[in-house]
Amino acid sequence: MIIIGELINGMYKDVSKAISNREADVIQHLAEEQVKAGANILDVNIGPYSNNVNDDMKWLVETIQKVVMVPLSLDSTRLDVIEESMKLATNRVVINSTSADEDKMSMVFELAKKYNAQVIGIALDSSGVPLSRDKRLELAVKIVAKAAGYGISADDLYLDPIAMPINVAQAQAREVMESIREFRMLCNPSPNTVIGLSNVSQGTKGHRSLLDRTFLVMAMASGLTAVILDPLDKELMDAMITAELILNKNIYCDSFLEAYRKK
Amino acid sequence: MIIIGELINGMYKDVSKAISNREADVIQHLAEEQVKAGANILDVNIGPYSNNVNDDMKWLVETIQKVVMVPLSLDSTRLDVIEESMKLATNRVVINSTSADEDKMSMVFELAKKYNAQVIGIALDSSGVPLSRDKRLELAVKIVAKAAGYGISADDLYLDPIAMPINVAQAQAREVMESIREFRMLCNPSPNTVIGLSNVSQGTKGHRSLLDRTFLVMAMASGLTAVILDPLDKELMDAMITAELILNKNIYCDSFLEAYRKK
Repeated sequence: MIIIGELINGMYKDVSKAISNREADVIQHLAEEQVKAGANILDVNIGPYSNNVNDDMKWLVETIQKVVMVPLSLDSTRLDVIEESMKLATNRVVINSTSADEDKMSMVFELAKKYNAQVIGIALDSSGVPLSRDKRLELAVKIVAKAAGYGISADDLYLDPIAMPINVAQAQAREVMESIREFRMLCNPSPNTVIGLSNVSQGTKGHRSLLDRTFLVMAMASGLTAVILDPLDKELMDAMITAELILNKNIYCDSFLEAYRKK
Repeated sequence: MIIIGELINGMYKDVSKAISNREADVIQHLAEEQVKAGANILDVNIGPYSNNVNDDMKWLVETIQKVVMVPLSLDSTRLDVIEESMKLATNRVVINSTSADEDKMSMVFELAKKYNAQVIGIALDSSGVPLSRDKRLELAVKIVAKAAGYGISADDLYLDPIAMPINVAQAQAREVMESIREFRMLCNPSPNTVIGLSNVSQGTKGHRSLLDRTFLVMAMASGLTAVILDPLDKELMDAMITAELILNKNIYCDSFLEAYRKK
C-alpha cells in the first residue's frame, strides 16, 4: 500500500501559521512524524490562506526535503506553482491532480512528461462528480488514454474514483469500491487507485476513525493500491497493516504490527 | 449480515461444565447476552466431552429456547442427534453442516427437506480442504446442485469457503474472498455465504480481534452475508456494523452504532 500523508496542508491552522511565519521546525516535525508512521509520499498543499503561493510552496518543498527523503505529492490547482516546485524536488513528484477534462489533462500530462512525474487523475469532469460506476469508468478510461498519448504509463497514474461523505452519499461507497476493482482491470500494467480517505467521514460525528478505517479495509479488499490519509491515526494504520497482511503482502509473524513499523 | 453466535459450544470449559451439571442459568445467560449483542442465530454444539450427546443436545435446545426466540444452528457431526433436537425446535433450524461429499449431502439434504431446515454447506470433501478458488467453486456448485435436487433453494444454503488460519495458510485469505464473490454469483437467488471467523486468528498471538475484524470487513466487501463469531467482542461488532453502514444496508445517522444495537 502506498501511503500518502495528508498533514502538511495549509487548511489546518497550525500549518497555515507555520507557513506564514516560516516556522520550519513545525513543518519538519510533521514530515518526520508522518514518515516514521509509514507515509511513503507526503502531500504538500499550501491551503487557501496563502498570499504568496509560489514562494510558500517552494519553501515547503525545500523545508521538507531537508529532513525526509520520500517523494512529494504537489497539491495545487496552479500548475505554474507545481512546476516551480518540481524544479526543486530531489525525487520524482506526484502531481495532485488532474480531472478528466481535456484541457486540464493536456496541461498536466505535458508537465508530467517534461519532469517524469506521476499523476493523480480524478474521475470527474466539468459536469461534476459522477454518481455511477459506469460514468467513473468512462472518465478513468479517458485519463488512461490521454496519459498514454503522452507516453505516461498507467502505473504512473493514481486513479481516484472519489470517496464521498457517507452522511451525504451513502449509496456511493459501494459504487466507489466497484470502481476501484474496475479501474485495476482497465489495462496492464494496472493503474494505481487512490482515495482521499478522510472524505468518507467528513461532517460525521463521533466515529470518524472507525468509518475511515473500515472503508479503507473494504477498499483494499477491492484492490486499492494507494491512499491519502493521516498516518498518525494509529488505529487506522493498524487496520491498514492488518489488511495488507491478510492480502499476503507481508509475511505473518505474531508481532506483525511492530515488524511493519520497524521496516 | 446474519450473525451466528458461537459461544454455546462445549469445547469451552465453562459451557462443557454447565452442560454436564445442567446449569441452565449459565447457558441461558450466554444465549441472552449473544442475542442482546446482535446474534440472529445461535450455534449449539455440545463439544467433544459429552457422554450423552443426544440428551445433552436436547437439553441445550430446550434450555436456550426458554429465554430467546432466535433460530438455532444445530452443530454436530451426528445427524441422528440433530434430528432429535430438530423435533424440539420452535423455529426453523440451520443444520451445521454438510461437506460436498455425495453421501453426506444426501443424508443432510434429506433431513433438511423433511424439516424445512437451512443448511451450512462447507466447500470441502473427503480429499481435504481445497486450496484454490477453482476447486472451492467446483465444490460449491456440487452443493447447490445437490440441494436443488431436494427442492432446497440456494438462499436456504450458507456456503462456507473455509477461512483458514492466517499464520498457517496466509495466501488462502485472498482466495477465500474471491470464492465468496464467486459463490454469490453462482445462481439467482444467491446462496448465502458464511465463514467461521475465529479460524482466521487461530493460533496467533496478540492481535486476534484485530485480525478477525479486519478479515470480516474485507469478506463483507466481497459479499459475505453471514458469519459465525463471538458477538460479545464489541470492537468486532463495531466493525461489522460500520461495514454494513458503508454497504448501505442501514441508513446513516451520527449514532449509527447505538441505533443498530437498539434495533
